[in-house]
Amino acid sequence: MVKTVEETQLEQQLIGYHHQLHEHPELSFEEYETTKALKGWLAEANIEMLDLPMKTGVLAVIRGKKPGPTIALRTDIDALPIQEKTGLPFASKVPGKMHACGHDFHTTSILGAALLLKKREDEIEGIVKIIFQPAEENGGGAIKVLETGVLDDVEAIFGMHDMPHIPTGTIGIKSGPLMAGVDKFVIDVEGTGTHAAAPEKGIDSIVVASHIITALQTIVSRNISPLNNAVISVTRLEAGNTWNVLPQTAQMEGTVRTFQEHVRDGIPAKMQRVVEGVAQALGAKGTLHYTKLGPALINDEKYAEWAVETAKKSGLNVVSPIPSSAGEDFAEYLKKIPGAFFFMGVSGTSGLHHPDLIIDEKAILPSAEFFSNLAVDFLKKMKNE
Amino acid sequence: MVKTVEETQLEQQLIGYHHQLHEHPELSFEEYETTKALKGWLAEANIEMLDLPMKTGVLAVIRGKKPGPTIALRTDIDALPIQEKTGLPFASKVPGKMHACGHDFHTTSILGAALLLKKREDEIEGIVKIIFQPAEENGGGAIKVLETGVLDDVEAIFGMHDMPHIPTGTIGIKSGPLMAGVDKFVIDVEGTGTHAAAPEKGIDSIVVASHIITALQTIVSRNISPLNNAVISVTRLEAGNTWNVLPQTAQMEGTVRTFQEHVRDGIPAKMQRVVEGVAQALGAKGTLHYTKLGPALINDEKYAEWAVETAKKSGLNVVSPIPSSAGEDFAEYLKKIPGAFFFMGVSGTSGLHHPDLIIDEKAILPSAEFFSNLAVDFLKKMKNE
Amino acid sequence: MVKTVEETQLEQQLIGYHHQLHEHPELSFEEYETTKALKGWLAEANIEMLDLPMKTGVLAVIRGKKPGPTIALRTDIDALPIQEKTGLPFASKVPGKMHACGHDFHTTSILGAALLLKKREDEIEGIVKIIFQPAEENGGGAIKVLETGVLDDVEAIFGMHDMPHIPTGTIGIKSGPLMAGVDKFVIDVEGTGTHAAAPEKGIDSIVVASHIITALQTIVSRNISPLNNAVISVTRLEAGNTWNVLPQTAQMEGTVRTFQEHVRDGIPAKMQRVVEGVAQALGAKGTLHYTKLGPALINDEKYAEWAVETAKKSGLNVVSPIPSSAGEDFAEYLKKIPGAFFFMGVSGTSGLHHPDLIIDEKAILPSAEFFSNLAVDFLKKMKNE
Amino acid sequence: MVKTVEETQLEQQLIGYHHQLHEHPELSFEEYETTKALKGWLAEANIEMLDLPMKTGVLAVIRGKKPGPTIALRTDIDALPIQEKTGLPFASKVPGKMHACGHDFHTTSILGAALLLKKREDEIEGIVKIIFQPAEENGGGAIKVLETGVLDDVEAIFGMHDMPHIPTGTIGIKSGPLMAGVDKFVIDVEGTGTHAAAPEKGIDSIVVASHIITALQTIVSRNISPLNNAVISVTRLEAGNTWNVLPQTAQMEGTVRTFQEHVRDGIPAKMQRVVEGVAQALGAKGTLHYTKLGPALINDEKYAEWAVETAKKSGLNVVSPIPSSAGEDFAEYLKKIPGAFFFMGVSGTSGLHHPDLIIDEKAILPSAEFFSNLAVDFLKKMKNE
Repeated sequence: MVKTVEETQLEQQLIGYHHQLHEHPELSFEEYETTKALKGWLAEANIEMLDLPMKTGVLAVIRGKKPGPTIALRTDIDALPIQEKTGLPFASKVPGKMHACGHDFHTTSILGAALLLKKREDEIEGIVKIIFQPAEENGGGAIKVLETGVLDDVEAIFGMHDMPHIPTGTIGIKSGPLMAGVDKFVIDVEGTGTHAAAPEKGIDSIVVASHIITALQTIVSRNISPLNNAVISVTRLEAGNTWNVLPQTAQMEGTVRTFQEHVRDGIPAKMQRVVEGVAQALGAKGTLHYTKLGPALINDEKYAEWAVETAKKSGLNVVSPIPSSAGEDFAEYLKKIPGAFFFMGVSGTSGLHHPDLIIDEKAILPSAEFFSNLAVDFLKKMKNE
Repeated sequence: MVKTVEETQLEQQLIGYHHQLHEHPELSFEEYETTKALKGWLAEANIEMLDLPMKTGVLAVIRGKKPGPTIALRTDIDALPIQEKTGLPFASKVPGKMHACGHDFHTTSILGAALLLKKREDEIEGIVKIIFQPAEENGGGAIKVLETGVLDDVEAIFGMHDMPHIPTGTIGIKSGPLMAGVDKFVIDVEGTGTHAAAPEKGIDSIVVASHIITALQTIVSRNISPLNNAVISVTRLEAGNTWNVLPQTAQMEGTVRTFQEHVRDGIPAKMQRVVEGVAQALGAKGTLHYTKLGPALINDEKYAEWAVETAKKSGLNVVSPIPSSAGEDFAEYLKKIPGAFFFMGVSGTSGLHHPDLIIDEKAILPSAEFFSNLAVDFLKKMKNE
Repeated sequence: MVKTVEETQLEQQLIGYHHQLHEHPELSFEEYETTKALKGWLAEANIEMLDLPMKTGVLAVIRGKKPGPTIALRTDIDALPIQEKTGLPFASKVPGKMHACGHDFHTTSILGAALLLKKREDEIEGIVKIIFQPAEENGGGAIKVLETGVLDDVEAIFGMHDMPHIPTGTIGIKSGPLMAGVDKFVIDVEGTGTHAAAPEKGIDSIVVASHIITALQTIVSRNISPLNNAVISVTRLEAGNTWNVLPQTAQMEGTVRTFQEHVRDGIPAKMQRVVEGVAQALGAKGTLHYTKLGPALINDEKYAEWAVETAKKSGLNVVSPIPSSAGEDFAEYLKKIPGAFFFMGVSGTSGLHHPDLIIDEKAILPSAEFFSNLAVDFLKKMKNE
Repeated sequence: MVKTVEETQLEQQLIGYHHQLHEHPELSFEEYETTKALKGWLAEANIEMLDLPMKTGVLAVIRGKKPGPTIALRTDIDALPIQEKTGLPFASKVPGKMHACGHDFHTTSILGAALLLKKREDEIEGIVKIIFQPAEENGGGAIKVLETGVLDDVEAIFGMHDMPHIPTGTIGIKSGPLMAGVDKFVIDVEGTGTHAAAPEKGIDSIVVASHIITALQTIVSRNISPLNNAVISVTRLEAGNTWNVLPQTAQMEGTVRTFQEHVRDGIPAKMQRVVEGVAQALGAKGTLHYTKLGPALINDEKYAEWAVETAKKSGLNVVSPIPSSAGEDFAEYLKKIPGAFFFMGVSGTSGLHHPDLIIDEKAILPSAEFFSNLAVDFLKKMKNE
């Protein structure tokens, strides 16, 4: 597609913003400079900002000339504690921190959408809130934003994640589960320590832990419908520190990933039954400590269909992406507000969270245009429903 | 050793009895003809018989000329439901029944001891009761005999089992555990049947049974002192009958062998904990049905030493036998009365319970003489203690 | 919706055919009377029949007045070895056989579609082949039909299964995997038999089988992507026949269900590795006998969308059904010919394969009309693409 | 028993030596002061010392007036890295080191036996070598002594360990296995690390380790005769260090204890089969690193009987001790030279290796007398055999 002069100018401007963000990565809830920069850029564009009672993050708003519903576009703005190794001229200037997950790309694109929408106020039939959310990486930002109430009037919400393995110009859109619910657990086994030569005088916590782990496999293999999905991974196991003493305790840690809320809800009780039951069967005490981190990200079916139409109209190639078993706190919004989350192709040079990930900046303008079109299209369709 | 004329005559007589017993095997509690034959032979020898309030079996008594304690010699007299294949001229005439465990050998030898003792009444300082016990094979005979009270005055009791792998002329004597305590169990798992394609709608009883079996291994490997001994064998496992339905139930059966009474006592509770606990951990119901069959056979330490002296004096080679994990209801006597049980060498052509087992009849006379000497020696030693 | 007189007459006629088919169920490859009846009814309606070189089954054809592609409608015609317990006036007259899977419903509906299409020859832009397929239940019919070559010119194929839990008037349509790939396996473990009291003299095949079963769970729990689906169910386990002998062998049987062909392809090797490896690790020999029965049924994405349009136009309510992990040999056609398979609501009184299943005969006419419309619509759309 | 004046004097002298040794504990192969003290005391008593080509340890010899065989008495002389907490007036003066295993008691008693034997040269029919062995605790001393060849002419060897739970005046004597063979192992599992959300992209080394541990239980439960004994304990298990990454490797460590050399010999191959086989079955690589530390200690049957006679004659109460699953490098001598090892009662206040263990010094004199008598008796019996 041939770009207009205006498009080319906007692209240059956005790429400049991207460089600046990329050079100054900030960790979750510490996005002070990023917040300041965003506020400056929005002010330059005469875009209204609303009060966001948080230390970092920005809430902008575009008010259409015609009445209609309120929707939101969301980007996350935080970076990761990774030492960048890309060698880019605009590589991170902060040692040990890097935008290795592409939140700088999200932010630049959504900012671009805001700039475009500002110029389309005549077309807009309703209100578009644009939320620059802090702290996605540690999972707390979305919940904090929701707690402020600034999205209480929002009837639909949209966001995206860049996908290195999807080429620039292609967008992944899918109704239903797109990203996993993510939980965390610790399992403690308390046996009775004893000399390794006299196991009968104690309870072997290592043998108990082994039986718990083999029994935990049956939850996924036998208790989850083959038409649903779940992962239970024990990722750490520690017990004992020498060769001739059976340790009193063993500790395991791990994570659970699910794509259906009812599957997620059923797992802690099943795990508890296995952990406590197997331990008891072998004379020990097993305890499960289960922490829910974030729900699965479930796209609205109708909105996903509508988004396909806008994407095609915007010149993007649309694919149905394979869901990811990673987590994303956009899921918290979708538990309260219908909406959709997209995988935006950026032809990345390596995977997310890699110190040498370089994304294709040519993906910024199309992303901005897609979200601009999305806002306009959705407000119209929602109003007419 | 050169046999005297008398010895040769006695040997001929005993071998004749042996042929007759071997030709007419009778199963547990059905030893009517055997009982009749024994009574005839004892009567011929003018040996006194006491009332034994049982349908089969005989109680003989030899009263010494000198006063002293009462001891007992015991033989078992029943046969097995096995079709003999030895081709012997005196092979079993009863289809499907055979003296394949050598109880005919025991009976002939102990009868021989009775005949010898009858001639040694002058020497005997006390009383020798000789019990021809029915129903060893099904484990009920010894308890029945004890219940009659006929052994209430007995201060020591002795018996033997023939051992095919020990040569004729050799006897195995060992203090402490010689044969195993034998128990039996059935384990029922009740899950919930379901179509094989929808395991999440049921509870997979086969997976539960597998986890129970792997967990049961830990009782022997972790809960029994390495200085003690136990076997837990699941010998039968049945579940399901087709390829596309997960069965509601699984059933297991098996046996426990132990050599120490406190080990034996501890096992049912440990098994119950595993069976119920593992089943529960996986959402099923596990039930253990445990049946105690017979205790371990534990020889008296001092009497074992004394028996070694008598055996050597009787011209037998003495070895310390490896204990057997098979069961023997002589163990029931030893729980109430001190005594000893011996493994008598018979140079058998194959193992016990084999349809082609032939034992060496040359072992009969030395066995008879050993038990005759044993009775005389023990009464003297016991009196003088 | 109000039925026209013609519709009411056709419904009466089809319900009559349904009664007749239901009263005379025939098992796979024995559908002689069914074939005869179908040929009679088709002949009455002047519908052309083509040669089908099989003992049972019928191939009819409707030739449109306008040229165009060739498509196929398929029904299966066989019944099950189940004793009917519905008490219906038109219940099965054949002891031990019943149309408990609703193939009589499929057959009547597709026959109805043929009758309707016969009257719409002017509209039809191409050719509609109608295949009355024998032997779906035992999995061989579809492959046999394909082997005859009668469908070689067919560019799209459609079929259905009645669904008792979906209400009459509703149809389940879904692109992608709809029914499972179905495989079957037998696992043989060869240990070494021994007396239960001396496990060290043998190899305990029951313990080996238990470890194989617990290890098999890890294929689904660890080796299949959480975004894919698979079931591995061991449904039968037999080993040993008494309480005091460890058996030489154990045998397991079961089934594998998958929804993605690459997942299905990967499972036999993983199972073989577990079966052989675990057995070897414990000193035994494990052998996997794996039989592929039928592939997963995968609907064409575009045709599924088109079918939604026809269904709505035909007055049916459309739902996105949960896939079934049962198998269906229509999947064999879809491996060669694009097409779609539907779940037709019949408000059944109980589940498929139940002896008391009664379906709602009011579902027959709408099904016939849907398939009639489908043929007309698809030929037009395919021609214009 | 009433002590003579001489006995009382000797007891005082030996208790003095004991205090001195107890105050100056030295670790394995660092027993320089102990060696110096022993040489001084032996020299004072005019006891001949032979060259022992080792940095620590002493070899004394008593030559009888009459010719006969050569036998050896052995004591170990090293201490432990434990901080003493007894509060005794003669408590360890060396911080962090203590004679918490009673080797000071052994040394004093055997030295006492040497002093007594020196006065009985007229009675002695042969030669008594007395070996003060370094480094029992770390398992290397006995092998080093054997390598020097100084015991090549020895036909029988004797030693002891103090037993806190056996009362003073009682000795434990038992033929056959008395202490365990001790081995050590490390198991490495190499899987393939992966994100916890995508287990199918790796090989889960924690699940593999768990299956290895459950399978290892079957060696003791199924592959070792119930009449033999073994312990296999996995005492350490480490894998992974976070909650969302499946680790590439898992490491286990542990120990094997056995009482029969053929059982010990069979275990490494069985473990290797399980470790490699189970790992392979689950797609990983398992490696067993097995280190043999020391053999089981097996007493000679005849010598054990003879020792009972000497012990009774020496006024000791004799019991048959329960074997210990701890290790003892005296076992190395018994693999080459027949002999016996005894458990000497010392009425200890707590278990061996405890920082507050106090033993009863009244046990020293009887121990010295027993070993003195043992040497005299055995030489006579051996000569006359």
